[in-house]
Amino acid sequence: MTPWNQVTIIGIGLIGGSLGLALKKAGAARRVVGVGHRQESMDAARSCGAADETSLDPAAGVRGSDLVVLATPIGLFRQMLQAISPSLAPGTVVIDVGSTKVGVVAMMEELVPESCACVGCHPIAGSEQRGVSAARADLFRGAVCIVTPTAKTPPDAVARVQQTWEALGMVTHTMTPEHHDRLLAEVSHLPHVVASALVRAISGEAEPFVGPGWADTTRVASGDAALWRDILMSNAGEVAAALQRFEGVLAAFRSALMQGDAAKVEALLAESKARRDKIKRK
Amino acid sequence: MTPWNQVTIIGIGLIGGSLGLALKKAGAARRVVGVGHRQESMDAARSCGAADETSLDPAAGVRGSDLVVLATPIGLFRQMLQAISPSLAPGTVVIDVGSTKVGVVAMMEELVPESCACVGCHPIAGSEQRGVSAARADLFRGAVCIVTPTAKTPPDAVARVQQTWEALGMVTHTMTPEHHDRLLAEVSHLPHVVASALVRAISGEAEPFVGPGWADTTRVASGDAALWRDILMSNAGEVAAALQRFEGVLAAFRSALMQGDAAKVEALLAESKARRDKIKRK
Repeated sequence: MTPWNQVTIIGIGLIGGSLGLALKKAGAARRVVGVGHRQESMDAARSCGAADETSLDPAAGVRGSDLVVLATPIGLFRQMLQAISPSLAPGTVVIDVGSTKVGVVAMMEELVPESCACVGCHPIAGSEQRGVSAARADLFRGAVCIVTPTAKTPPDAVARVQQTWEALGMVTHTMTPEHHDRLLAEVSHLPHVVASALVRAISGEAEPFVGPGWADTTRVASGDAALWRDILMSNAGEVAAALQRFEGVLAAFRSALMQGDAAKVEALLAESKARRDKIKRK
Repeated sequence: MTPWNQVTIIGIGLIGGSLGLALKKAGAARRVVGVGHRQESMDAARSCGAADETSLDPAAGVRGSDLVVLATPIGLFRQMLQAISPSLAPGTVVIDVGSTKVGVVAMMEELVPESCACVGCHPIAGSEQRGVSAARADLFRGAVCIVTPTAKTPPDAVARVQQTWEALGMVTHTMTPEHHDRLLAEVSHLPHVVASALVRAISGEAEPFVGPGWADTTRVASGDAALWRDILMSNAGEVAAALQRFEGVLAAFRSALMQGDAAKVEALLAESKARRDKIKRK
């Protein structure tokens, strides 16, 4: 692929910082500009090589870039888009790496000048760690990135953005923002709510008895609360629907337990085990 | 502590095999006899040092032992107890390492001769791995063991069993079998059902998009289905009650989402995060 001349990454934490490192390593960006709100993080981003240059001012940071990446928590996207919009040169491609797409893509299409192209992206990578100090060039390698063009998205911008993610070792899929949000409610947002609720489900006297299984099952509940509030609120309808279906699955399980139906309980467990083992083998 | 002269471990897989290795390493057993139903596993148990000697016959295996440990899946406990009972010398201490206690302890007290002592135990350690090949001497170190005496349990047997677990580096707690089963429903059995149900909650087209969070949250669902059927069925009442409470927690979350109550959603997430972080720091 033709490398981007200059990429501005707004929000240079775990994801943004890893993206800077990965773009440089893959030769997909000649120059990376990092934008953030704390000088200390900006210094760290430059010294670890995630950015060649940094700025505390989003509008200044995007000047001269042909790719701009929104990598802050999605709750800050509107403010960032309003700040950078007047400074975007015609032809600039603006992408995001947010975990929900319907609201985010609509907001980008509303606030970015028509002379630019917006492409919604969701690289499914990361961890509960935060900050540029956790960034690594191989964070995206082998993982999946969903790209969500709309009728308004120029096909050449979609193609170039896909090539960029693929240059970082990702497998890309394209789908509508609506389709993305429905699938991600199932595989990510529902598990997050469930893990968080599981932590609430134990009494204080049970706390000393949590084992490694509990720690695994609830791990994502240690994710940042404000970040996840924004993700869940921006996909509230799909998450609520997934939760309601899930409550039904639990009620069926509970009914088998209360009826003493050991064969049914084993069948439910065995089916889930087989399916999980198959998914993890892929 | 005074070492046991001879310990028979019935079922020498991950837990039983690790126990054999740990007892020998700690000097808590002069001799370990492993009992299982496959010659191949018995050979593996001897060659990795988990047992000094092995037998395919439970009745022969317990002869001459002052401690007998039931470490098979709990669904086999009745059959094993019936097989060994006539061969148990007076004064023998019989313990188990099963994940539920009310039914198991009642069964031990029913089938073990009154001249022996039964002590229900639940070392909270292990993984989704299976077999003596996964056994390791440090599996129990730093973990918690719950010991569940009843009015019938001789206090000196309880004390000696506690000392044995402590010699392996475990922290012991004592409580009634009923109390154990209520707490474990919250920290282990409920999370297992929930993880299993989460696997069922995703549609086929969502499968390519599972990330590391999904893998963590559902990990325990890859556990053995028959083993977990027995655990869940032997604690069905408490698990069903915990599930019903949990469905209520989910419904409250769903209601906050549907009402667009971002502050409530954030408060629920933040409270769970703080609690989990506190529990994991302990």
